[in-house]
Amino acid sequence: MNENQLRELLDAVRTSRMSLDDAVSALKMLPFEDLGYARLDLHRALRNGFPEVVFCLGKQTEQIVEIMTRLARGDDPVLATRASPEVFEAVKRSLPEAEYNKLGRTIVFQRKPLPKRGGKILVISAGTADIPVAEEAAVTADVMGNPVDRLYDVGVAGLHRLLADLERVQSAAVLIVVAGMEGALPSVVGGLVRQPVIAVPTSVGYGASFGGIAALLGMLNSCASGVTVVNIDNGFGAGYAASLMNCLTGK
Amino acid sequence: MNENQLRELLDAVRTSRMSLDDAVSALKMLPFEDLGYARLDLHRALRNGFPEVVFCLGKQTEQIVEIMTRLARGDDPVLATRASPEVFEAVKRSLPEAEYNKLGRTIVFQRKPLPKRGGKILVISAGTADIPVAEEAAVTADVMGNPVDRLYDVGVAGLHRLLADLERVQSAAVLIVVAGMEGALPSVVGGLVRQPVIAVPTSVGYGASFGGIAALLGMLNSCASGVTVVNIDNGFGAGYAASLMNCLTGK
Amino acid sequence: MNENQLRELLDAVRTSRMSLDDAVSALKMLPFEDLGYARLDLHRALRNGFPEVVFCLGKQTEQIVEIMTRLARGDDPVLATRASPEVFEAVKRSLPEAEYNKLGRTIVFQRKPLPKRGGKILVISAGTADIPVAEEAAVTADVMGNPVDRLYDVGVAGLHRLLADLERVQSAAVLIVVAGMEGALPSVVGGLVRQPVIAVPTSVGYGASFGGIAALLGMLNSCASGVTVVNIDNGFGAGYAASLMNCLTGK
Amino acid sequence: MNENQLRELLDAVRTSRMSLDDAVSALKMLPFEDLGYARLDLHRALRNGFPEVVFCLGKQTEQIVEIMTRLARGDDPVLATRASPEVFEAVKRSLPEAEYNKLGRTIVFQRKPLPKRGGKILVISAGTADIPVAEEAAVTADVMGNPVDRLYDVGVAGLHRLLADLERVQSAAVLIVVAGMEGALPSVVGGLVRQPVIAVPTSVGYGASFGGIAALLGMLNSCASGVTVVNIDNGFGAGYAASLMNCLTGK
Amino acid sequence: MNENQLRELLDAVRTSRMSLDDAVSALKMLPFEDLGYARLDLHRALRNGFPEVVFCLGKQTEQIVEIMTRLARGDDPVLATRASPEVFEAVKRSLPEAEYNKLGRTIVFQRKPLPKRGGKILVISAGTADIPVAEEAAVTADVMGNPVDRLYDVGVAGLHRLLADLERVQSAAVLIVVAGMEGALPSVVGGLVRQPVIAVPTSVGYGASFGGIAALLGMLNSCASGVTVVNIDNGFGAGYAASLMNCLTGK
Amino acid sequence: MNENQLRELLDAVRTSRMSLDDAVSALKMLPFEDLGYARLDLHRALRNGFPEVVFCLGKQTEQIVEIMTRLARGDDPVLATRASPEVFEAVKRSLPEAEYNKLGRTIVFQRKPLPKRGGKILVISAGTADIPVAEEAAVTADVMGNPVDRLYDVGVAGLHRLLADLERVQSAAVLIVVAGMEGALPSVVGGLVRQPVIAVPTSVGYGASFGGIAALLGMLNSCASGVTVVNIDNGFGAGYAASLMNCLTGK
Amino acid sequence: MNENQLRELLDAVRTSRMSLDDAVSALKMLPFEDLGYARLDLHRALRNGFPEVVFCLGKQTEQIVEIMTRLARGDDPVLATRASPEVFEAVKRSLPEAEYNKLGRTIVFQRKPLPKRGGKILVISAGTADIPVAEEAAVTADVMGNPVDRLYDVGVAGLHRLLADLERVQSAAVLIVVAGMEGALPSVVGGLVRQPVIAVPTSVGYGASFGGIAALLGMLNSCASGVTVVNIDNGFGAGYAASLMNCLTGK
Amino acid sequence: MNENQLRELLDAVRTSRMSLDDAVSALKMLPFEDLGYARLDLHRALRNGFPEVVFCLGKQTEQIVEIMTRLARGDDPVLATRASPEVFEAVKRSLPEAEYNKLGRTIVFQRKPLPKRGGKILVISAGTADIPVAEEAAVTADVMGNPVDRLYDVGVAGLHRLLADLERVQSAAVLIVVAGMEGALPSVVGGLVRQPVIAVPTSVGYGASFGGIAALLGMLNSCASGVTVVNIDNGFGAGYAASLMNCLTGK
Repeated sequence: MNENQLRELLDAVRTSRMSLDDAVSALKMLPFEDLGYARLDLHRALRNGFPEVVFCLGKQTEQIVEIMTRLARGDDPVLATRASPEVFEAVKRSLPEAEYNKLGRTIVFQRKPLPKRGGKILVISAGTADIPVAEEAAVTADVMGNPVDRLYDVGVAGLHRLLADLERVQSAAVLIVVAGMEGALPSVVGGLVRQPVIAVPTSVGYGASFGGIAALLGMLNSCASGVTVVNIDNGFGAGYAASLMNCLTGK
Repeated sequence: MNENQLRELLDAVRTSRMSLDDAVSALKMLPFEDLGYARLDLHRALRNGFPEVVFCLGKQTEQIVEIMTRLARGDDPVLATRASPEVFEAVKRSLPEAEYNKLGRTIVFQRKPLPKRGGKILVISAGTADIPVAEEAAVTADVMGNPVDRLYDVGVAGLHRLLADLERVQSAAVLIVVAGMEGALPSVVGGLVRQPVIAVPTSVGYGASFGGIAALLGMLNSCASGVTVVNIDNGFGAGYAASLMNCLTGK
Repeated sequence: MNENQLRELLDAVRTSRMSLDDAVSALKMLPFEDLGYARLDLHRALRNGFPEVVFCLGKQTEQIVEIMTRLARGDDPVLATRASPEVFEAVKRSLPEAEYNKLGRTIVFQRKPLPKRGGKILVISAGTADIPVAEEAAVTADVMGNPVDRLYDVGVAGLHRLLADLERVQSAAVLIVVAGMEGALPSVVGGLVRQPVIAVPTSVGYGASFGGIAALLGMLNSCASGVTVVNIDNGFGAGYAASLMNCLTGK
Repeated sequence: MNENQLRELLDAVRTSRMSLDDAVSALKMLPFEDLGYARLDLHRALRNGFPEVVFCLGKQTEQIVEIMTRLARGDDPVLATRASPEVFEAVKRSLPEAEYNKLGRTIVFQRKPLPKRGGKILVISAGTADIPVAEEAAVTADVMGNPVDRLYDVGVAGLHRLLADLERVQSAAVLIVVAGMEGALPSVVGGLVRQPVIAVPTSVGYGASFGGIAALLGMLNSCASGVTVVNIDNGFGAGYAASLMNCLTGK
Repeated sequence: MNENQLRELLDAVRTSRMSLDDAVSALKMLPFEDLGYARLDLHRALRNGFPEVVFCLGKQTEQIVEIMTRLARGDDPVLATRASPEVFEAVKRSLPEAEYNKLGRTIVFQRKPLPKRGGKILVISAGTADIPVAEEAAVTADVMGNPVDRLYDVGVAGLHRLLADLERVQSAAVLIVVAGMEGALPSVVGGLVRQPVIAVPTSVGYGASFGGIAALLGMLNSCASGVTVVNIDNGFGAGYAASLMNCLTGK
Repeated sequence: MNENQLRELLDAVRTSRMSLDDAVSALKMLPFEDLGYARLDLHRALRNGFPEVVFCLGKQTEQIVEIMTRLARGDDPVLATRASPEVFEAVKRSLPEAEYNKLGRTIVFQRKPLPKRGGKILVISAGTADIPVAEEAAVTADVMGNPVDRLYDVGVAGLHRLLADLERVQSAAVLIVVAGMEGALPSVVGGLVRQPVIAVPTSVGYGASFGGIAALLGMLNSCASGVTVVNIDNGFGAGYAASLMNCLTGK
Repeated sequence: MNENQLRELLDAVRTSRMSLDDAVSALKMLPFEDLGYARLDLHRALRNGFPEVVFCLGKQTEQIVEIMTRLARGDDPVLATRASPEVFEAVKRSLPEAEYNKLGRTIVFQRKPLPKRGGKILVISAGTADIPVAEEAAVTADVMGNPVDRLYDVGVAGLHRLLADLERVQSAAVLIVVAGMEGALPSVVGGLVRQPVIAVPTSVGYGASFGGIAALLGMLNSCASGVTVVNIDNGFGAGYAASLMNCLTGK
Repeated sequence: MNENQLRELLDAVRTSRMSLDDAVSALKMLPFEDLGYARLDLHRALRNGFPEVVFCLGKQTEQIVEIMTRLARGDDPVLATRASPEVFEAVKRSLPEAEYNKLGRTIVFQRKPLPKRGGKILVISAGTADIPVAEEAAVTADVMGNPVDRLYDVGVAGLHRLLADLERVQSAAVLIVVAGMEGALPSVVGGLVRQPVIAVPTSVGYGASFGGIAALLGMLNSCASGVTVVNIDNGFGAGYAASLMNCLTGK
């Protein structure tokens, strides 16, 4: 409910087209649907630019199916993340057109894809084991209407692999850099470009990687200016933020 | 040295205008100046879009003065962060036009400010004690050529203070949200807008705030999509990243 | 054994109705029953206002059944928490009237429920995945004789979902707010009410949530005054504390 | 602005006593005063039951004096915490009636104290070094209109010191238990009473006390049901929460 | 090899009963047996007062069987800790007289028990779930020749359960106090006795117990003087240390 | 108040020599003196074997002087730890015979030293910087009536320095081993003796020593059986515990 | 591409044997092969002295087989670490000559072993449970062409087991010391030798070993000069670094 | 005392040139000098290849002067680290030839420098603020007889600064890489060379650098094989280890 709608409502009160009690109620009537265990934020696309996304961890399969089915009634694409193959099978029974990205563990349902915006989002991963998180980011950015490019396995211990694609790197509008272990890649990439770099630490590693803490701290302390960071393994968040940034292009 | 310059150099070799030895040397000649204790990255503005910034912590006053003086020979603005009043006094003797922001502890030297870009960067702080970090962000964004707006002391325990300025909040191109203690403000702001939100945890707090860890973790775990995070107290990094994002506007 | 009983005992000694040795023994005779592996605190209802609760983690099924059976001989309700379905099946064989809350993993056995006290306890959860902990709190408060209301999935990234029920929120006597991830909801709720708020961090989240540490720290650093905190996932403790607070109502 | 006020406003619009534009503005006019660096929440007493409290850490002395002077224009008591003697001297020049608690580092300004409510709040400290935090809690509870009792230096390694005052302990409406080092006192107290216990960990200790972490963890893991916890050294928060709980008495 | 043996060896050299080469070798001949993957310290009983104990975690079953069989050739009792039922089954096939303590997960093989020393070692546990660790301590102390007494489920939230057995508590020579969660029991016990108290934190708990860290820190910060601490869940270490202390009795 | 005194009291009640009210009061009359900010545990020597010790950190100088003066009225030695030279100067004005150990920061007041017990307590330190903590332990053990020996600067990187004094090491009744950095010395010493070893981690070190955490963890994980641990820098606790253990000698 | 190759390329341009476009491309042509999910660094042996090693964790079995098969086309040995038996079975089907070290979980494929260098690398382990990590180090050093010796189960609690082999210890060129728990062995070894010591902490232990953190911190704080450390359980890294050091021998 | 000396001693016993008692004593006579608070390891040069180094932190100035004076009686160079200017002034009064490195805080006393060995040790630092630690490493390596080269301020965010000196980097025998913040430089350097790389994390940084933890973890998790790590800010340890490695050159 924006200011114009508020004016209209108040005008209706002023001209007695609406009673006081109805106005009070209307001011409280909010754009969500209550399923009991979840309050679906159906107008989120208006407020945040993209519909609510279903984060599957900690939700029961029936809940996920019901939420996705309800969201699928709208026109916008529906995205579910951290979806196991079993969850996908259940969703597919209700939404046969849903598609699954096995590596990135995402489910996408869309009647027709959103039109692509101009700037390219490049997803870079340091190692092969970081690819699942990178794919989650790439799918998220793609379904939100962004052109997406991928550059995988270009860790800093073999710099020439990255430098070989310097042109692709420097021509992206927004970069997502995914790395586990010491998480040094965003610093190196950040030093090579003048576009925003979103760093995604992953839990790839062992011992003193502490489930991604080493990479997270490395990225937060990056000596390259302009690097921002999301949660460990949060490919979705990186893709979403990159899309918001890319939306600025051309405005 | 970009691809065109490389082509010219190779062409000079091909047409024998340049000897082999000179070409080898030229390919190694790099755009920095070696002061012994520091290698000034003079072409950084070309590569990263803004000249090197002087981070004063851990540097000696004479080093800071020499570096700033050297950078000031160029046309670009020069920014120093984490500068004590003593450092500023020393810098001022060499660069009398330098200006000091007492709260944000920044020194700016600029012959003429960069022209402003279209999108507005809004800096929001949760509490009065977070203002120094917010100012560092605001000065950085300003000196890099962005219109900057400020909204201070709007913590989540008194939501109406934030909601009173909802329109300002929703009309910014990029938002920087600075908060200590539990660091909840970026989640609330992130839920209200469709633009990129950069969260800056501060070390404001005591006890279990652990010097900003509580705020940092809160922001990394934000339930609002699209929030990215920088290091604790890193106002500069937030301002720099916001500027890179704002640069996408209108491209 | 309270002061009156002590006086009676001493009076019995004074009037020689009780021997010295018996008095010494009586002073040592304590209101618990020793099962070898456990000392049941049978008079706890007198001392603490509610009988001992059976925390099932780390106890063997036979032990749980024996303890519950023994406690069930009294008049008070018996509550077991963190009970798996298998434990419930075993308990049910001995106490067929026992009831199981699948989400909250609680077993309740009560001949007749305690009469309800006046103030309402409201249990709020930030997300769908926080519901198991919220249910543990709700069941605990309910079995201890409190009217209980529930408000689920009202996280801070969609404030309107919470504000839509502001009246319910502000009319509760005590509020329990359950949240994982960044744990910001108690700060927002605490800023809206003038009643005690008990914050329950949950282990819901991933990466830098560190099993609930992020939410715990967020709640401990809440900028809203009057918020107190219990252990991660400790729905029972929140329900119990809320009941103690609610007992003050009308005194 | 409550529902009644909203109804009145809407009625004024309906009957054309107020223009649309004025109504929109009024709905945005919020009960705070903007000092630039701080937004004073002047209606907080209505919403939260007690006026805003001035937390002095991280604020400049002039800011504190201005904020307190502004708040002192109302009828409610004004409380400042974490105030150094220097801050108090400055405040006293503007508000000569202000009083300072040296141990608890609090400043109180009140034209006349609030009337006392019925239930007693008992503040218990484990050691002599915990007294500053205990005093902050006691002053806060006192200025908010609660009868306050104190019981200091009754740590668990000499249980008889606590048991000697068992009657005082068991007759309080709400208990605040302040302890550093291992923080075990709230568990022992919680096992002796049937009233709410608020545990306050302090940073008293050395080595593996880690600035209060040991006490904090001990209290969060308390085996006594009904114990809730506030931040390390947060005497104010404990006093405030105890007052909210005590407000339930007699309702 | 003690000083007397050294003198004898040197005397043999002096009187030419032993060659130089043999002497050099003898000085290097050390009292262990090399199994390749393990060097059995067969003279440990002489040096440390009790033979080497087999810690089963991380060893393969065949290795455990071979080591125990080899140690069993001597006269001393053989103890294995952290032994699964499967390991016990395998050991039993080679050493049919071996005995298994199911709760404490220990295997004991002894031709005849060591004679008991005078002082009693009392093992106290806070809760039912702490019993496995308490049993490991009790079995260790028992097999090393100490009279052992047990007092279980006497946590600090119900002090009367402990005080009921105060006499038993105060008559022990050495006390082992086992507790998880907040680990407060050793402080309370330590305040009641004048004998050494060994505190054993356990990993019993959840959330902010962090696998025993809360209990460990609580014990390290105990306000009761004379409490020393061993590793989390290290019942064996506590029993062993208690035995060394008890050996001082009567010397 | 022991069992005999209880019997006498009850007998006085039985024979009407004491009224009921007096008996109730007497049962509550406890052996401490209340100074307001401190409750002096005057009978501690009876209960714990040594009078209360004054831990100076966090106490005001006047408080320390008053407490020591009050304790000095008894016959037992009085010990204060963590005492600055300033505190000592103040104490000396009231108790001129008090003695100060500059390295160990202890104050001792004793009319006549306690008679020495038979077993020797050996205090070993790894490095020169660990000596202050070692001295605190040595003074504590000495004032409690134990023969004390010292062996300093025998860290594990130069084993021969320790082995040179093997005989002294092996002839002690109890050993206190003080070490910072990696804290390996207790493991080595523990492997050489059959007496109890108390390990004291110190905050000596830098970087990843984390103020003594590295040494603390090293000692808790010692591969030498029979090692128990006290808090970081807790020389007093080690000396006190060693004394309790040494008391067993000859019983 | 080294300087000579660069000169040749530039000469070809100068003499027009190569076009400008081809030169630009050639400068970008880099020595890796892109498999999509991995960029094989085929010239790594030239640059780093040993071909790329396959770290199996987080890679799919098919990926591992394809990568190893591709690397096996060269002349150099191929090493895979952290390989499960299942992975080995799959690799064996493609490379029947591959060999598996069950304890160290390594796969080695080599047509003919590299010739051995002169200096010996000695791998020492503290306990039996540390052997898997020690074997990973030993296999790595062996396949890289180093003579390797092993000395297992010589923990510091039984020093004589280590001292018995002092000569072997002191004659190695480089030492790798593997230890869990308190990780003290590298300090002791480092004090006995004048060669480089590489310390490898392992996750062997429980409770306060925190998955190897205790050992890691112990080693980083080693009081023996010249000890360097690798990640927890990183036997491969230790073997690799030892080999690089051993390469210096004889240069 | 080596094997030959042992043989001679035994031979003296055999031929009765030495009494038994003298032999026992001689075997215990060890090569250190006991100053009471320190045991100087005078034969360390024989055992470890370099005399004992004086670590000044935690030592009193007089102790440092006495230790250095005593060590200066030998022929070897004497090195003191972490020496304040005040300490140097005191040392200089006793040893006027002593030299001070202000940045690296080292004192060196040497009658004549050790002859230089062949291989070069290159010390690289990421930033200007890391230079003090780098200098400590460089001075240590220099005084131990190694040719030392320095390359400062070549952080990964400006790769060209490092690549400009690739030849110097690749021609060193051993590399020491010093970096704070995210500590990524050793990974990049390690990927470019085939020599051993010693990584030194520094405490340079703020916020989530946590005093060097971020850099430490980054280096421990380096994706470049062959990197080993020392403690935070441990320039001395890196220089010492590098020297031990360089000693292998030419053997």
